[in-house]
Amino acid sequence: MSTLKGACIIGQSGGPTAVINASVYGAVKTALESSDITSVLGAAHGIKGVLDDVLYDMGKEDPEELRLLLNTPSSALGSCRYKLKDPDEDESEYVRILEVFKKYNVRYFFYNGGNDSMDTCSKISRFMAKKGYECRVMGIPKTIDNDLANTDHCPGFGSAAKYIATSLMEIYKDSVVYDIGTITVVETMGRHAGWLAGSAGLASWFGCGPDLIYLPERVFDIDKFLSNVKELYDKNGKVLVVASEGIKDAEGVFISEYGSKGKGYVDSFGHTQLGGLAAILANIIKEKTGAKVRGIELSLLQRCAAHIASQTDINEAFLAGETAVTAALSGQTGKMVAFERETINGEYKCKTKLIPLEDVANIEKKVPLDWINPEGNGVTNEFIDYVLPLIQGEPDRRLENSLPRFAKLKKIKV
Amino acid sequence: MSTLKGACIIGQSGGPTAVINASVYGAVKTALESSDITSVLGAAHGIKGVLDDVLYDMGKEDPEELRLLLNTPSSALGSCRYKLKDPDEDESEYVRILEVFKKYNVRYFFYNGGNDSMDTCSKISRFMAKKGYECRVMGIPKTIDNDLANTDHCPGFGSAAKYIATSLMEIYKDSVVYDIGTITVVETMGRHAGWLAGSAGLASWFGCGPDLIYLPERVFDIDKFLSNVKELYDKNGKVLVVASEGIKDAEGVFISEYGSKGKGYVDSFGHTQLGGLAAILANIIKEKTGAKVRGIELSLLQRCAAHIASQTDINEAFLAGETAVTAALSGQTGKMVAFERETINGEYKCKTKLIPLEDVANIEKKVPLDWINPEGNGVTNEFIDYVLPLIQGEPDRRLENSLPRFAKLKKIKV
Repeated sequence: MSTLKGACIIGQSGGPTAVINASVYGAVKTALESSDITSVLGAAHGIKGVLDDVLYDMGKEDPEELRLLLNTPSSALGSCRYKLKDPDEDESEYVRILEVFKKYNVRYFFYNGGNDSMDTCSKISRFMAKKGYECRVMGIPKTIDNDLANTDHCPGFGSAAKYIATSLMEIYKDSVVYDIGTITVVETMGRHAGWLAGSAGLASWFGCGPDLIYLPERVFDIDKFLSNVKELYDKNGKVLVVASEGIKDAEGVFISEYGSKGKGYVDSFGHTQLGGLAAILANIIKEKTGAKVRGIELSLLQRCAAHIASQTDINEAFLAGETAVTAALSGQTGKMVAFERETINGEYKCKTKLIPLEDVANIEKKVPLDWINPEGNGVTNEFIDYVLPLIQGEPDRRLENSLPRFAKLKKIKV
Repeated sequence: MSTLKGACIIGQSGGPTAVINASVYGAVKTALESSDITSVLGAAHGIKGVLDDVLYDMGKEDPEELRLLLNTPSSALGSCRYKLKDPDEDESEYVRILEVFKKYNVRYFFYNGGNDSMDTCSKISRFMAKKGYECRVMGIPKTIDNDLANTDHCPGFGSAAKYIATSLMEIYKDSVVYDIGTITVVETMGRHAGWLAGSAGLASWFGCGPDLIYLPERVFDIDKFLSNVKELYDKNGKVLVVASEGIKDAEGVFISEYGSKGKGYVDSFGHTQLGGLAAILANIIKEKTGAKVRGIELSLLQRCAAHIASQTDINEAFLAGETAVTAALSGQTGKMVAFERETINGEYKCKTKLIPLEDVANIEKKVPLDWINPEGNGVTNEFIDYVLPLIQGEPDRRLENSLPRFAKLKKIKV
């Protein structure tokens, strides 16, 4: 172990999740307990907080409020979607980051985010090395999209999958209640990878779920889709469809852009279809079948529903934050904490490993094509076996008047 | 107590709720335990199951599966939206109902639904009396809309209110995460009454909720709305709005119909706005402010989210079903079970009472105007005090693999 004394900065970036704050808690708690880390700073809105020198003293927070981060959704420190420039072209931002790091003697930088955030981490790490400023940089993964490479899965995904599966089971029950025909189309997030849409397959696996599931990994053929829907409708009178927002046709056009791209799907009033994918598909089905159709967009709820989070996901998110700090303290840098799955006597175990930031940055992990059924409208048992362990366990939430009691941070600026 | 021996029929009608099956369980369990009730029949899809003679023998169900109805959302027996004709104009349907009642010696009829269902109950009750056929008819209330008259509140509302408040707290956390401006518009159900939209006020009361709440009880002034939104946006950079689907302008036009009614709100492409209220308001705000706006429709989830039901609501729904049966056994007929609130030493208690069906049928109870703030964009403390006791307690759900294990009924036809 090579000892390095100094402050640390922890930041959050990208879209929030139900458990991203559990990672921050894991990192902050572990850092506060370390004698090498002289002060623990939270960056307001990720790297922007560093650039703007808006940093919170996490040591001044009430320990119990910090603990409540385990069940507080969304990024408590604030997030950003800010991509640093390429340092080879313009290093001014990195110079500024170094200036702030020097100001507070920051020797540890922990960044909690997805692909882009790992890219940010990687660039900062290389810049500091180039300038000979010793600073250990570690990435802490998060994304409901589950699309980070070289890790079995990502914190945030299990809770989103559980929300989607539970909601689909409930929607299924609701959608079959009348003796008149109905078709329901539910849209999940997932622009490029179908992990979230596929998770709806858990509901089907439990006998209360969608008939048809469409992932962006496969080309979406609208005629085949309509014929699948019509066949099921004629047979059962009820059809429940789940589709990922990112499904595209053979020409690579997002179905969600069919309205604005003038693909000819207009309603009987001659209006082109605006709105999200669920609304567009619902309108197309309505026009073609005459059935009663409802479109439901799960929207933000799938990424912030801490009330139905997976305790496994919370524990692993905490573990990711904790591991980032302990690994950095032991001398690691330029790595992201990743997960490795071990199945021992049929029991799921999650181990951490460290992978180079470059092996994650800007790469998207998609659902293996053979985890999607041959018809391209459902997932296989391999997908179910993969996701089921990740949704286990009920969150031990603090409630007040039966409503969530989220963490209240003081956010005292240094 | 006047003894009446015979079969009973239990039916469900109207839109489902998270706890409607708890009422059926209360009624079925109590009926099965009665020595006067010779068989307990469930009507498939409400009154349609009676007309079509599709009745299930509830005595053949596994008691544990029946118990799981406490946490199974949506109408387990199937629902309908079927309005019986006026018996003074055409009594053929009532003659048919009487025929089926006679076939099984049905002497008790329990109907679980909202306004229209109480109308159905009332008509059947009067017809049977006119024909001299002794049959005790009891209404069991349910509706997430909470709009039944002469009862403090309705089973189903508390759970929907809890879902809305919890989701709004989570959406609030998500919507404030970036340091760029965002406006979020959330649409709740409630065509004529604002109980559901107003429940979002619980989230605000807890410091994590909407800035503006619009109920259909007050005229919606779109210019005032836009000026409220703009003012908050300029001040805070974030605005969270909740609106009931039923808000109308001064001319009585639903805002949700502004697209099809050609009220002139078109986007920059010249498209009129399709989609629900959230999409329409979001587009109007976007056009007028240029801000990043997101519309979220809570959709079916607010009425079927059994996973976040209120245990108080579940208990009361059961109580309503149980009371209907015990009251009928004791000789009552033509009544609906209603709730009366007692607050003893600050503690909420719910008592049942019986009210004539005619006092409920076709009447809508709205939010008192003085429970809405003078600006017409929020609720008062009276509203919060009213709704808070109704959302209390976490549901004791049976889970399998961390997903809900709903009741599986055999539905054996008699």
